[in-house]
Amino acid sequence: MFRKLLTYDEAKKAIEQNLKPKPLGAEEIPLLDAYNRVLAEDAVSTLEIPPFNRSTMDGFAVKAEDTYGAEENQPVKLKVCGNVPIGELPKVAVAKGEAAEIVTGAPVPEGADAIVMVEETNRQNDELLVYRSVTKNENVQKLGSDIKNGETILKAGRTLGSREIGVLAALGKSKIRVFKVPTVAVLSTGGEVTEPGQTLPPGKIYDINAYSLCTAVRESGGKPVYVGVVPDEKEPLREALERALVSGDIVLTSGGVSVGPKDLVPATVGSLGEPGLIFSGIALKPGKPVTLGLIGKKPVFSFPGHPTSALLTFHLLARPVIQAMAGKTAGERSFVEAIAGRRMFSAKGRRTFVTVKLNRDESKRLIAEPVETGASGAITTLAKADGFVEIPENQQFLDVDEEVTVWLFKEAL
Amino acid sequence: MFRKLLTYDEAKKAIEQNLKPKPLGAEEIPLLDAYNRVLAEDAVSTLEIPPFNRSTMDGFAVKAEDTYGAEENQPVKLKVCGNVPIGELPKVAVAKGEAAEIVTGAPVPEGADAIVMVEETNRQNDELLVYRSVTKNENVQKLGSDIKNGETILKAGRTLGSREIGVLAALGKSKIRVFKVPTVAVLSTGGEVTEPGQTLPPGKIYDINAYSLCTAVRESGGKPVYVGVVPDEKEPLREALERALVSGDIVLTSGGVSVGPKDLVPATVGSLGEPGLIFSGIALKPGKPVTLGLIGKKPVFSFPGHPTSALLTFHLLARPVIQAMAGKTAGERSFVEAIAGRRMFSAKGRRTFVTVKLNRDESKRLIAEPVETGASGAITTLAKADGFVEIPENQQFLDVDEEVTVWLFKEAL
Repeated sequence: MFRKLLTYDEAKKAIEQNLKPKPLGAEEIPLLDAYNRVLAEDAVSTLEIPPFNRSTMDGFAVKAEDTYGAEENQPVKLKVCGNVPIGELPKVAVAKGEAAEIVTGAPVPEGADAIVMVEETNRQNDELLVYRSVTKNENVQKLGSDIKNGETILKAGRTLGSREIGVLAALGKSKIRVFKVPTVAVLSTGGEVTEPGQTLPPGKIYDINAYSLCTAVRESGGKPVYVGVVPDEKEPLREALERALVSGDIVLTSGGVSVGPKDLVPATVGSLGEPGLIFSGIALKPGKPVTLGLIGKKPVFSFPGHPTSALLTFHLLARPVIQAMAGKTAGERSFVEAIAGRRMFSAKGRRTFVTVKLNRDESKRLIAEPVETGASGAITTLAKADGFVEIPENQQFLDVDEEVTVWLFKEAL
Repeated sequence: MFRKLLTYDEAKKAIEQNLKPKPLGAEEIPLLDAYNRVLAEDAVSTLEIPPFNRSTMDGFAVKAEDTYGAEENQPVKLKVCGNVPIGELPKVAVAKGEAAEIVTGAPVPEGADAIVMVEETNRQNDELLVYRSVTKNENVQKLGSDIKNGETILKAGRTLGSREIGVLAALGKSKIRVFKVPTVAVLSTGGEVTEPGQTLPPGKIYDINAYSLCTAVRESGGKPVYVGVVPDEKEPLREALERALVSGDIVLTSGGVSVGPKDLVPATVGSLGEPGLIFSGIALKPGKPVTLGLIGKKPVFSFPGHPTSALLTFHLLARPVIQAMAGKTAGERSFVEAIAGRRMFSAKGRRTFVTVKLNRDESKRLIAEPVETGASGAITTLAKADGFVEIPENQQFLDVDEEVTVWLFKEAL
């Protein structure tokens, strides 16, 4: 355990070096259920796409050279030799001077190398007048022109949305290997907190953090396990943490990490097993008391009790670990560029994060307005804050009208 | 049915006027399961938060005036009269000249009006030296200062993420009324398409759109019902659409809407019931053949077969309807501002949408590069396109280096 506070960068490094977070393994699931899951292996095509020369128009398959010279007042005359049905191999072949009727998506028949659009023809029984010349391959999507057999289309680590799932369907896949979802056990400590849904006893407040953190776990690609509120006493806390370590690949706690006489969390986490405490305290604002333990291979993050601070430090420290264990490629965090609406000050010697609300001004610019994170507005702050901006240790403030990067609490504005 | 193509704006208006999309009703669910659901009623606090004057520090509850004049070299001496446990009403009261030990989050005892931080005191048994004066209410979060009883904290229509669910927990709610999720039946038509997971017969390609649209439905707050591939023949198509109208509050089809001899979708949709076809064809690129029917109260959107065009027109026309039926407040669509990386041309007389890929240049600016949407790159386009930019009917092009708004296919970058 470190005696001196780590810097924020040292804490990030300690997480990387001690936890070495990586995916928990893969499983095969139906592609239709794979929304928001993470691809566990590169998606490689096992076919040419399209798998045949494909007409991109309704019209007639022809030899391009047969149409040379065709103009509106000087059509070329061809003989209709048949019809290409869609969804099967053509039974006709196109010889010199011939044309075969074809629809969009049908395979171009043997002998033909271009498609004349129906709008540029006039058909009378078997006689076809063509009013515009076509070049070779015109209106033809060539075999393999979109995707080659053996081509890698999506990389492992990609989170699957509508476009990715469409692309995987195009490759013929109805099942897909995705990374397992890490489970994250979430508990709140504190003799003053009561679980929502119960009557509020005098002197108590409702728990917020187990609920907001469970949801933040979902937003990060994990599956939350709600443990609930645990009393701030040694044995119940120890038992709850041991249970949480059974049900979760990661454990999150909030509250009980300050220096008060009741703040038992760091010592209790440290006593649960080897290697134990990785750090307790970071030169960070908010979030100075944040604590990390590692019990076997399972990380235990302990956040402050203040709701906005807990969610903010979760985003800074735990979210990247959950994302890595979910197999997401690094750097998946949403941000926008905005203009500082007011001067924002840092805390001396600490990496400072200021929670902000985003608004658009008359000229559509995004403005980042700091919101009160003090104890007096714990919950209303949480409702208002869209994200946070970062101020380095050696910088006193961000000035009004400065351009700032705002890291978002949710995935989008 | 309209004979002339509607403009894009007329089509949007026709959707609004004919569909009048609104939420399907509400249901009560556990708050912990409410991630990404939509609040069906305003969340109004039924308690003061905090519900008592709350200490925000570990230290001693005092009468502020007793500390006036205290300095580092001239401490004030007080008598420790007791201890305030956390999570219950204080049993001590603080009289003049007294101090009660207190921890963060505990109720301030009667008689006290400020908290002295423990770091600014020195205690010897019952004797307390205070080295700094405090003002009235210092380190005290007053009853109701965060949220008042009767105050509206979140409005109906808000999509619930980590912050919102935390705020609802703070109000003591463990269950919550949310809007019902609209079900959306999705089918693909076309004699050339085969369902993924099956062997690909000669002359066929795998279906993409039912998969990408099912996922886009999830991304929009709906629940997809996968119907699959339906042959391009009158009776099977009619039967499939009738089944889809039973299982879905909305039906989406793709393919079969062009002018080809096999394109039966508009006529079939129109024959399913009253009021029937609302429009068939919009002066839009891509997506000119998009068709909308209304059968009773259920909309049937028919999109083109080209995968990127289908997804794009879904975003433009169907997504807002699904969002409205899911109860989401208007305007929930993600966009970013970017710089056009190339000149992008519009189609004469049509509202044009150009699919683009976003990259950041050396100076961190977002650059929007158009991606090929032609038939030759149907699937690779889908994999690459991050979103789309809009060009009005009366504008020939967007110029390189112009600032453009990019509407995103997914919720965030």
